Formats: sequence, C-alpha cells, structure tokens
Amino acid sequence: MSDAPPRHILVIGMGAGDPDHLTLAAIKAMRRAQVFFVLGKGREKESLTRLRRDILAEHLTGPYRVVEAEDPWRDRTQDDRGRYTSAVHDWRHRRADICERLIIEELAPGECGAFLVWGDPSLYDSTLAILEDIGDRGTVEFGHEVIPGISSVSALAARHRTSLNQVGRPIHITPGRRLAEGFPDDEGDIVVMLDGHESFTHLTGRGLWIYWGAYIGTPDELLVSGPLDEVADRISRIRAEARERHGWIMDTYLLRQGPGAPGGA
Amino acid sequence: MSDAPPRHILVIGMGAGDPDHLTLAAIKAMRRAQVFFVLGKGREKESLTRLRRDILAEHLTGPYRVVEAEDPWRDRTQDDRGRYTSAVHDWRHRRADICERLIIEELAPGECGAFLVWGDPSLYDSTLAILEDIGDRGTVEFGHEVIPGISSVSALAARHRTSLNQVGRPIHITPGRRLAEGFPDDEGDIVVMLDGHESFTHLTGRGLWIYWGAYIGTPDELLVSGPLDEVADRISRIRAEARERHGWIMDTYLLRQGPGAPGGA
Ligand SMILES: C[S@@+](CC[C@H](N)C(=O)[O-])C[C@H]1O[C@@H](n2cnc3c(N)ncnc32)[C@H](O)[C@@H]1O
Ligand SMILES: C[S@@+](CC[C@H](N)C(=O)[O-])C[C@H]1O[C@@H](n2cnc3c(N)ncnc32)[C@H](O)[C@@H]1O
Repeated sequence: MSDAPPRHILVIGMGAGDPDHLTLAAIKAMRRAQVFFVLGKGREKESLTRLRRDILAEHLTGPYRVVEAEDPWRDRTQDDRGRYTSAVHDWRHRRADICERLIIEELAPGECGAFLVWGDPSLYDSTLAILEDIGDRGTVEFGHEVIPGISSVSALAARHRTSLNQVGRPIHITPGRRLAEGFPDDEGDIVVMLDGHESFTHLTGRGLWIYWGAYIGTPDELLVSGPLDEVADRISRIRAEARERHGWIMDTYLLRQGPGAPGGA
Repeated sequence: MSDAPPRHILVIGMGAGDPDHLTLAAIKAMRRAQVFFVLGKGREKESLTRLRRDILAEHLTGPYRVVEAEDPWRDRTQDDRGRYTSAVHDWRHRRADICERLIIEELAPGECGAFLVWGDPSLYDSTLAILEDIGDRGTVEFGHEVIPGISSVSALAARHRTSLNQVGRPIHITPGRRLAEGFPDDEGDIVVMLDGHESFTHLTGRGLWIYWGAYIGTPDELLVSGPLDEVADRISRIRAEARERHGWIMDTYLLRQGPGAPGGA
C-alpha cells in the first residue's frame, strides 16, 4: 500500500488478576511497545485499568504512552442465540472502528503498539478478531504478534489445586448461556465462564462437584468448592454479596462429573 | 502425625517449550525451593530435562539440588477405554510410590521441594493426582501449592494468532483417542492433545479448518494451518519426518467447525 515502515501490534496476555502471572515474554514484549491501547467500560474498567497501569509502571523504565478509549455500548438484552451472536458481532464491528482509528491516529508508521489483554488472548476475547477485521479492511497496514497469558481457567484450577480433566477424558469450556441448552454426556469436566445467571443453580441433583472462584488472583479472591448440591446456595449468597460490594463480578467455575470427584488428573 | 516442621511442595507450571513463558510467580516459587524433583523417560526426557536444567540455571542463584528418578514403565498396549484408564491408574500408582519415596528420603522436614511441570499443571498432567494420592496414604505430611503455567494450548493459539473459540460457542479439549468415539455437534472448536494416531486424518470431508503445531515454543517448532482437506496429507508427512528425526514428537491442534473458519473470537 505504501513505502512507510509498517506499524506493529503486540497482543499481550497479562494474566487474569495476579500481576505475578505475567510471563517473561510478556514483559519483553511490553518493553518493545511505545503505545498501549486500553479499551474499557464503567466500574469494571476502573479495576482492570488500574492493574494494567500498575503492571506498566512496575516493568517499564523508558517512556511510553497510554491511550484510553471508551468501549462502545453493547446490546445485552438479546438472549436468543442468533441475536446474541449478531449483537456481539455488531459490537465488535464498532470496537474495530475505534481500534482502527487508534492505530491510524495514535501509532506512527514504524512504531510498535500493544494491547494488554486480560488472561489469555485466545479465550473469549475479541482483540484478535478485531485486528483481523481491521486487516481485512485494508485501510492501514500493520503486522501483529500474540503473547499467550495465564487464563482465568488455569488460575482457577491452580488455586483449587485440581486438574481440569480426569484420566483420558475431555474438558469442555463453555459460556454460561450455553449450559442451559444442554449438558455434555461424555463424563468430561466442564469449565463455565461468562455466566451472568448462576447457571450452576439449575444443575443440582446430578452428583456434580464444583470448584468456584471469583476475582481470582486479586486481593478480593473468593474460592468455594464442594458437592454442588451442598454448596450451591452458599456460592449464590457469596456471589450476590460480592457483586453488591464491588459493583461487578467476574467468576469462573469447574463442574466435575461422575464418581471421580474430587480428584481429577 | 509428628511435631516436625512440615514439608512443602510447589507444583510449578513452566510453560510448554519456550523458556520465556515462565511467569514471575514461577520464578519466585522456584527460588523458594531447595530440591527439584524430575521424573522422565527416554529421549523425550532428555530434551525436557534439558529445558528444566536450563531454566534452573538461568533463574536460580543460590544452591539447589536436582533429584532425578526414572519414570516407571507404562503399559501402552491397552486401547480399550476401560483398560486404558486402569493402565494409567496403575502407572500413576507406581509413580506415586516413587514420589512418596523421594519426598520422604530427599526432602527434610521444613524443606521446600518443587516439581517443574510441563505447560500448565491442570492439563493432562498427573502430578496433582499423585500428590493427592500420597497425601491420602498418610505416610508423610506435607503441604502443597500450585503455580499455573502457559499450556501448549495457549501457546498453539498464540502462534497461530487465533482464538480458541468462536463468538458465544464452547471449546472442547480432548485426548486424540476420544475423537474416534464421537465428534461434538455443537459447533464448538476442538483442541486435540495426546494424539499418537493422527486422528485428524479421519476427519476430512467435514469442512474443518486445522491449526496444527509441534514442539511449539522450541527451536524445532513446526506450524501448519489451513482447510483440513487440503493440508492433512502435508501435516502427516511433516509429522512423520519430524518424529523420525527427533525420535519423538509432541503436537497439538485446533479443529474449527462451521463457516466461521478461519477467524474465531
Ligand atoms: C471476556 S472473558 C475473558 C477471559 C480471559 N481472556 C481469560 O483468559 O481468562 C471474561 C470471563 O473470564 C472469567 N474471568 C476472567 N478473569 C477472572 C478472574 N480473575 N476470576 C474469575 N473469573 C475470571 C469470567 O468467567 C469472565 O466472565
Ligand atoms: C501429557 S500432556 C501435558 C500437557 C501440558 N500439561 C500442557 O499444559 O501443555 C502432553 C501433550 O501436550 C501437548 N504438548 C505439550 N507440549 C507441546 C508443545 N511444545 N508443542 C505441541 N504440543 C505440546 C501434546 O499434545 C502432548 O501430547
């Protein structure tokens, strides 16, 4: 498209709450960037942005710029699967518009910019799809690279000192809203993310074991584990209180099927 | 059981090949340990043990001991699911015998020992189950802690710059041998590990996209992606050559269903 030196973008997994979950590769990558892009929203944004700023302040010595942008509004009223997907696609498209503008206006040709992504960039995060979208538009040329991060799933398992799988069995990772539509019958363990509706409360009576965690890796971390039938109410109560206190919540849980619980492999 | 100060064991995820995938938490944990336990086998062991020794040499300054033990023999002839599971349980039991002895004989009361686990300790690794088993025996008292690591799954996705999931859809992680028994029909993406039989070769004709990687994160890394029907043969060939050259192989792949491939979310 032009002879200008290319822009470069680093998508850096920063872990899901514990600043010590940063990898050496992430720190090295951060030190290559001149600009950091931060998109966020509301009170959730405040906490997550604070962690990003702390991480940058701790590990960078040279000068760098932080460019913040407000996340576009997202239609969260759509619960039907098709409408949910198109609401997300629509939202992403508007996020891509914002990122495209940031890349063109805030990153000079030849410069290196970075997105610090919560957890691992490969897990329910839109940054990679947005960059692909912008690339497809052909309006600005850039290369990009991905640095993996510790996901909230790995952090959950570590804090509960459990494996995600049992011997020879599969693992399923699913958004909470999908759990209502059906339950895998292959004895695999199930990790639930993005669950705004406490889907676990509808799964009692099946002999499941639950390993639940909220704000994992942060000073506000909450952990509960046990037979689902016995601890479901307690988790609901703790969850509601925490959500009330913080104004938002992020939680993840593992459901273990079959006689193997607890334990794993 | 006794008034001796307790032994402490750290189970540390070290990443799946790239020494820079080590987290700050892993380095801090390594520095707390006086003894490192290494179990391994054959040529695979040589390479993996070398990476462990390099990591220790690079990040530790004080004195430490490395205790190596030969992995017990494992019956790999059992392909039937029930027999496979019991062969693995049997093998674990013998591994637990060895680890129990290591903990009793090589770790003094009050000392801290560590297992450096490949990738993330929560993913198809037996260390946590073995420690639980030893704990249940009641022959030696110890506490333990888990430090998550970058898994080969996160590393695979990062190298291919792809997400593991599509918008709102689940992710399945499965041992290769389970893939032959059935294929999830929920449009979720599938990550295949521990696949000795190139199961992907039986999955052509379904419109799948594959993201394949071997020795990810190491200088020997191999990556191939594309429509499965077009690249399956090439992957088989590359895989066979690499396996011949190295004497062993470790590979992982993502299969993406539906019209969304490539891309993801
Ligand atoms: C948009 S997804 C992003 C996941 C992220 N990329 C990762 O690797 O963890 C957000 C979901 O991740 C989970 N999550 C992220 N951080 C968490 C934390 N510190 N504690 C518990 N759950 C967390 C929650 O299920 C939340 O709904
Ligand atoms: C016993 S499992 C251990 C997985 C490990 N705990 C992790 O988090 O990646 C071994 C399997 O992991 C995958 N694997 C581990 N390291 C890999 C690498 N560097 N490249 C490709 N696959 C790898 C392969 O599928 C292999 O069969």
